[in-house]
Amino acid sequence: MGLTIGVDIGGTKIAAGVVDEDGTILDTCQVPTPPTPEGVVEAIAHAVRTVGSDSAAEAVGIGAAGYVDDKRATVLFAPNIDWRREALKDKVEQRVGMPVVVENDANAAAWGEYRFGAGAGHDDVICVTLGTGIGGGIIMGGRLYRGRFGVAGEFGHVRVVPDGLLCGCGSQGCWEQYASGRALVRYARQRATATPEAAEVLLGLGDGTAEGIQGKHVSAAARRGDKVAVDSFRELARWAGAGLADLASLFDPSAFIVGGGVSDEGDLVLDPVRKSFRRWLVGARYRPHAQVLAAQLGNRAGLVGAADLARQG
Amino acid sequence: MGLTIGVDIGGTKIAAGVVDEDGTILDTCQVPTPPTPEGVVEAIAHAVRTVGSDSAAEAVGIGAAGYVDDKRATVLFAPNIDWRREALKDKVEQRVGMPVVVENDANAAAWGEYRFGAGAGHDDVICVTLGTGIGGGIIMGGRLYRGRFGVAGEFGHVRVVPDGLLCGCGSQGCWEQYASGRALVRYARQRATATPEAAEVLLGLGDGTAEGIQGKHVSAAARRGDKVAVDSFRELARWAGAGLADLASLFDPSAFIVGGGVSDEGDLVLDPVRKSFRRWLVGARYRPHAQVLAAQLGNRAGLVGAADLARQG
Amino acid sequence: MGLTIGVDIGGTKIAAGVVDEDGTILDTCQVPTPPTPEGVVEAIAHAVRTVGSDSAAEAVGIGAAGYVDDKRATVLFAPNIDWRREALKDKVEQRVGMPVVVENDANAAAWGEYRFGAGAGHDDVICVTLGTGIGGGIIMGGRLYRGRFGVAGEFGHVRVVPDGLLCGCGSQGCWEQYASGRALVRYARQRATATPEAAEVLLGLGDGTAEGIQGKHVSAAARRGDKVAVDSFRELARWAGAGLADLASLFDPSAFIVGGGVSDEGDLVLDPVRKSFRRWLVGARYRPHAQVLAAQLGNRAGLVGAADLARQG
Amino acid sequence: MGLTIGVDIGGTKIAAGVVDEDGTILDTCQVPTPPTPEGVVEAIAHAVRTVGSDSAAEAVGIGAAGYVDDKRATVLFAPNIDWRREALKDKVEQRVGMPVVVENDANAAAWGEYRFGAGAGHDDVICVTLGTGIGGGIIMGGRLYRGRFGVAGEFGHVRVVPDGLLCGCGSQGCWEQYASGRALVRYARQRATATPEAAEVLLGLGDGTAEGIQGKHVSAAARRGDKVAVDSFRELARWAGAGLADLASLFDPSAFIVGGGVSDEGDLVLDPVRKSFRRWLVGARYRPHAQVLAAQLGNRAGLVGAADLARQG
Repeated sequence: MGLTIGVDIGGTKIAAGVVDEDGTILDTCQVPTPPTPEGVVEAIAHAVRTVGSDSAAEAVGIGAAGYVDDKRATVLFAPNIDWRREALKDKVEQRVGMPVVVENDANAAAWGEYRFGAGAGHDDVICVTLGTGIGGGIIMGGRLYRGRFGVAGEFGHVRVVPDGLLCGCGSQGCWEQYASGRALVRYARQRATATPEAAEVLLGLGDGTAEGIQGKHVSAAARRGDKVAVDSFRELARWAGAGLADLASLFDPSAFIVGGGVSDEGDLVLDPVRKSFRRWLVGARYRPHAQVLAAQLGNRAGLVGAADLARQG
Repeated sequence: MGLTIGVDIGGTKIAAGVVDEDGTILDTCQVPTPPTPEGVVEAIAHAVRTVGSDSAAEAVGIGAAGYVDDKRATVLFAPNIDWRREALKDKVEQRVGMPVVVENDANAAAWGEYRFGAGAGHDDVICVTLGTGIGGGIIMGGRLYRGRFGVAGEFGHVRVVPDGLLCGCGSQGCWEQYASGRALVRYARQRATATPEAAEVLLGLGDGTAEGIQGKHVSAAARRGDKVAVDSFRELARWAGAGLADLASLFDPSAFIVGGGVSDEGDLVLDPVRKSFRRWLVGARYRPHAQVLAAQLGNRAGLVGAADLARQG
Repeated sequence: MGLTIGVDIGGTKIAAGVVDEDGTILDTCQVPTPPTPEGVVEAIAHAVRTVGSDSAAEAVGIGAAGYVDDKRATVLFAPNIDWRREALKDKVEQRVGMPVVVENDANAAAWGEYRFGAGAGHDDVICVTLGTGIGGGIIMGGRLYRGRFGVAGEFGHVRVVPDGLLCGCGSQGCWEQYASGRALVRYARQRATATPEAAEVLLGLGDGTAEGIQGKHVSAAARRGDKVAVDSFRELARWAGAGLADLASLFDPSAFIVGGGVSDEGDLVLDPVRKSFRRWLVGARYRPHAQVLAAQLGNRAGLVGAADLARQG
Repeated sequence: MGLTIGVDIGGTKIAAGVVDEDGTILDTCQVPTPPTPEGVVEAIAHAVRTVGSDSAAEAVGIGAAGYVDDKRATVLFAPNIDWRREALKDKVEQRVGMPVVVENDANAAAWGEYRFGAGAGHDDVICVTLGTGIGGGIIMGGRLYRGRFGVAGEFGHVRVVPDGLLCGCGSQGCWEQYASGRALVRYARQRATATPEAAEVLLGLGDGTAEGIQGKHVSAAARRGDKVAVDSFRELARWAGAGLADLASLFDPSAFIVGGGVSDEGDLVLDPVRKSFRRWLVGARYRPHAQVLAAQLGNRAGLVGAADLARQG
């Protein structure tokens, strides 16, 4: 199979693109994410037809946040869209006349990085996406591991603090409350409140208040050496690295690929993550260490990965 | 291949047995575990020759505590025997003249349960052994998953309490400090010290002091309704169930198989574990739940599993 | 001084009462708590005039949630009313023509219990109020200890879980997130969600949903043996008792007096609290143990205590 | 009363000194700490007679690690010497012919700092000694607060991590496991093991191994900018500052005096402690902040304080 179409459903926009066998995006389009489940299906179909009309694309891969069943056809539960047991594959196939594969968006992104990004040369890869929350994907022996019910790799909801912070999932102490972009902002706000004199750059970038601090402000301020911003990244890195050490005990990959907005800062973030990873890696002296790599495809990973999964059928 | 020999290296004794294709042990022998690395190799060879001399066994599988490299030939590090990069496969092959496969003992036991025990009908199984420590094995899609460097499935050393109890591995807060047999004894001793009047049965089974309480006493006292013993099992179950919920987020298996001394009490332990598992399972309303099953093979699982892995080459 | 007037400012109503030297309330009235700071001052004055008009009361003591300065005149900060550096003493004195003393409500309640309730015979008492949040009061050597800035005894905001639950105070892991009435409801809802079949009584008392569970339902269900309700009280008791053990390390009192809605259930709650206290009490074998007593005055403690503090000037 | 003698019983040596009303030590002597309880009593008496023979000293104050009863006469329990209900006051009085007061060593040191050191101008002071363990002393309203049974101020054994590190006291997660000199060394060893290339100075000061690192090495390396040493102090400071914030919620002092070996580095340590204190101080915007001061008397505080307590009778 040559060309396929990848679709990435985000909270605010849906992106579709024609992708070739080398993972290159040939054509792309975006539409806003409609508020209703039906609207989303129509928007997906519209986006697919838009990019696919002039191409020889033969299949569609859709990456969606949520639990996707093991037939890769139905979204059991989505956090952002009001889908409950939504038969997405069937509905889109009826509209676009091509075979459709549905995959969890983090899995799709992991597959994209594994095939065309940072994963080159590795067959046992754990992808961790540090975005607003934390997503993940598991590649073992060159295959995407989805779990029995299609919902493996929910790294963000591993409990890292007993009796810890409440999470939107209903549990407490989930990793994504400590190592995601949202956690980074919380660290920065708490610290800027306590010691505003050490956060002058950071506060200057927002509206001057701790509550006005956004993730982009923390990144920009850290690059300029703002003490609170740097400390906030360091705190995030402690949790991120400790979590990777746990994942190493569980999966023993040859590489971690770290993506998501938090990782856009590259080694500014990844170096302290690596340090924390090494500190907490069990048996560090007696085993090869997994590499901690930055993702390479940015927000294209999901679209490219979904398209490639559709190619593989 | 018909008959193979399984070897299980324990801290105090080494067991070898001839095993057929159905997982039945036809002949077996035990020798004490020698104190030196060389002695252990000789003892393994001796045990293999003892059970194998009259049989048609064609291969040997060895289960050993520690990190085993991805060629399943070398023990990188063992916690109980002074092995550092021990070429166990080569050394034993030279002595017994049969092909040898070395596997982590928890992996071997997991494989045994998957093939001939509680795992019947499941192809995505996580085995958790709650013994003195906690071991684990991962079966995904019907295959033993070993990780890139052969050291996956070290569930016992996932950090469940930041800044928690020191672990023999050098880290802190490892799961096995909270959900293993050793943890059970600690809970019982702490509680019996604080409220001895609620531990009369328990204290009566040992030497009358909290320090004299052993794991077997806690089990026996719990069966007789001793309050401290029951509470100690309940505390262990809270940690065990929460850990299984984390493993469900990561691996999404169709079943957990729980073995090890702690689980010998069956539903007395497993029912509270299941309750805690359900409490902490993320997305519980939107996904099928993995079953939590008791292991069936007891301490034969490692030997039988190692033999079967040797059969599969 | 003979009669004085005590005022207790609650979130929904303001109570005033004339109190004699034995702590007996002779006359009382209640008015709703107005929404504005000015309204509250007027309502206090109105309530004081209502009960005081026919009496020989000579002074007024006011108990208010929040930080009260060391002159016992100004409320620096209140969590429920929009007071910032509110000169409550001056404003009320101007309106009622009697000397006024302002005290933190938990301190006032502690003083009431010490003088006329469970504290009889003890001069070193720590009062802990397990209500919606957790309040506290410190009596040392027969004197109310207020701290340098009048804000000692904020037991509810001691951090008991690093990186724990967010608290309304802006910090994380505060004790009141784990051992208050609000925590009790959270435990019950989480457990009823996970194992509804073990919460039939509890769910039947509310609207049938976990979200509909209120504190009074948990108490009623626990008395009827509902498993989830009993377990929820037990979880609360674990945290409460461990916190008392910490307070014993710090203050070494001869008695704890436990009040608040959670403690209305008496020994149903206090017995597990005592058990947990003993489990975590440091040096338990080498020191006398503080008693853990139930408060006796209920919600009259604050009013009576405030009145008595006004008497003492 | 003019001159008195202070005695400080340490783990390795016993110091005695004649002290005047201004807290000046006029004469002093040291003897090794004997291994037996009886030997310690004799050594104390010998030291007292040595310094006191030519002086007009009229009373003796003894500071001893452990629980001291409320009559300040009997050591109920000592962690380092095998004392159980040791009638130290009587035994020493019989030997030296002067009135003797026994006080917990941390209380004595707190009193010394309050009277003649950093506490000048403060009447509500919390002293925290970050040494091998953590000791404490409470001065409220200008008086040493000892608790009902003489064992208040055991700050080091407040639980700051549920299910945390085992403590010699039998409990878990005690503050002194995270913010003492011993904790500092643990942090340094863990980090030097994980990232030896960032600990070159530190490792060079010891025997080259992580296990060889001592507290003095961490201090010296931190002054020279060693990354691991600096990070270790920072980790200690996080815990120390958070603990002070808790003590502020409880005691609301006007000042903290921080002493002990860890604080010898002065602002190198205290500045990050202050930062962490401010981060975690509850209600920081609505209350005056306690100062965090360095102790001034060093290891003389206990001797001077014990002497002054004897003067006061």
